[in-house]
Amino acid sequence: MRAGRRRVGTVAAMATDDNALAADRAADRAFLGLELTAEHRGRFVLTRALARHDGKLYGGTAVAAAIAMAEETSGRRSLWTTVQFISGSAVVGDHIEVAAEVLAAGRRTTQVRVTARLDHREVFAALGATALPKDGGVRGTFEVAPAVPSPEECDRFEFPLPESMRQTRIDMQRHMEIRTAGRDKPSGQLLFWARVRGHQATPAILGYLADMVPMAVVQATGHMGGGTSLDNTLRVGAADETEWVLLQLDPHLAEGGYGTGSALIWSPAGVLMAVASQTASLVVLD
Amino acid sequence: MRAGRRRVGTVAAMATDDNALAADRAADRAFLGLELTAEHRGRFVLTRALARHDGKLYGGTAVAAAIAMAEETSGRRSLWTTVQFISGSAVVGDHIEVAAEVLAAGRRTTQVRVTARLDHREVFAALGATALPKDGGVRGTFEVAPAVPSPEECDRFEFPLPESMRQTRIDMQRHMEIRTAGRDKPSGQLLFWARVRGHQATPAILGYLADMVPMAVVQATGHMGGGTSLDNTLRVGAADETEWVLLQLDPHLAEGGYGTGSALIWSPAGVLMAVASQTASLVVLD
Repeated sequence: MRAGRRRVGTVAAMATDDNALAADRAADRAFLGLELTAEHRGRFVLTRALARHDGKLYGGTAVAAAIAMAEETSGRRSLWTTVQFISGSAVVGDHIEVAAEVLAAGRRTTQVRVTARLDHREVFAALGATALPKDGGVRGTFEVAPAVPSPEECDRFEFPLPESMRQTRIDMQRHMEIRTAGRDKPSGQLLFWARVRGHQATPAILGYLADMVPMAVVQATGHMGGGTSLDNTLRVGAADETEWVLLQLDPHLAEGGYGTGSALIWSPAGVLMAVASQTASLVVLD
Repeated sequence: MRAGRRRVGTVAAMATDDNALAADRAADRAFLGLELTAEHRGRFVLTRALARHDGKLYGGTAVAAAIAMAEETSGRRSLWTTVQFISGSAVVGDHIEVAAEVLAAGRRTTQVRVTARLDHREVFAALGATALPKDGGVRGTFEVAPAVPSPEECDRFEFPLPESMRQTRIDMQRHMEIRTAGRDKPSGQLLFWARVRGHQATPAILGYLADMVPMAVVQATGHMGGGTSLDNTLRVGAADETEWVLLQLDPHLAEGGYGTGSALIWSPAGVLMAVASQTASLVVLD
């Protein structure tokens, strides 16, 4: 009977999780304007709020869309996603088609590929896995949450942008709110509170918020600037109910004008919700 | 004339680099037994030395093969690679076919996809970029190399394996030599010297050596074990001439039996050569 009881417990927990996951997926679709058009297929319009300052596709939007499609297709929560940026041709107003393929469906883990196209040209490609947590699986956090003031006590962060881009910056911030939480000069670490107002920090939203590593890498070299992401990777940890998350941006290295770093993503309660990383072609603005 | 002079300098530097890159690629092909069968296509036999303890494909081998194919196809050095493991069906003796596609070829950056197949089934899929360094591009290292004894002063590392697997372990170590360089209990950090004897630490070899993150994550939870990698990601930094590299394994988190962490890869001279990361389904052995 022990197996039976355990199974009942698991089923009950899964039912609750399924409801919660379905609600998260609906919220992610609403955030992205993602319309499901057929099995494993969807479409979203690149709005100004989902674009970069220059009107092109924002990397975090691509990660969010890839995660949303992987979760829709598998019915499981995102565990890891890597998005590769292929063509920078999508601009505000374009309809981007996203298609997911299940490459392997295991008992607990699904391996997925997501491809985004604009007029048959690949805009981005993603690989990733979604998973059901294992009953009694090991858990732990091996990083220490930084001590920072609350979001309410922190100043709004102003992107270091040329004057000509100020208007689009304000438009983007309709969706994303960022506050400066601290910095550590010697290591180059930058700390920011970030949120999408009105949206819980689902894996898709975390992917949307975490695309700030290149700026930290450039600042660590003593310059102002950012970069063109070659990829964005998001590795998901524990869930927590929160809009605000703390981005702990840790630059690793820059070499030959390219750079890499990671972002630990913490909830206000100190839960390590995800680890993001990326490689970028760095752009120095000063 | 200034532009002219600079261009001459660049061409000279590139010629030297091209020779060095070609030599590295030849060494990587020899290491993997990688045979180029057609344009952008190759094949290698899964030998015991390229396999895991159980005779299946070793994750580091897949990363090395993906990097080698991306570099062969683009003629540029690997900058970032993510490999997704799809099917665990490849076993010792199998011929694995690898095919590369150029998704976007920029002036300095090439976006590539590599797919490995066994009898038309996908074994692994990889996304990545290769690049030419930018003249005068920013550079810097924002991590501190750990202070450890030299490889000669460190003891050989013994994988925590059941008795039945000892023979295959010894076979694997024909290619890979690992020594225990230190550990930090509170953070779960593990430090290892690793090398493939007779092979310089090219990006492909770094990918081969760095597949040890899951063990560090499991040990940080207080258990012995490892994991089944869902992906391996390698982000390449500066080059250095060395066989031995120091793997600084930093576990980030475990949740629901899955886990993630990263590995900073240092040369003995303190050059940060790459940053690896992965997500794995964790396996507890005790």
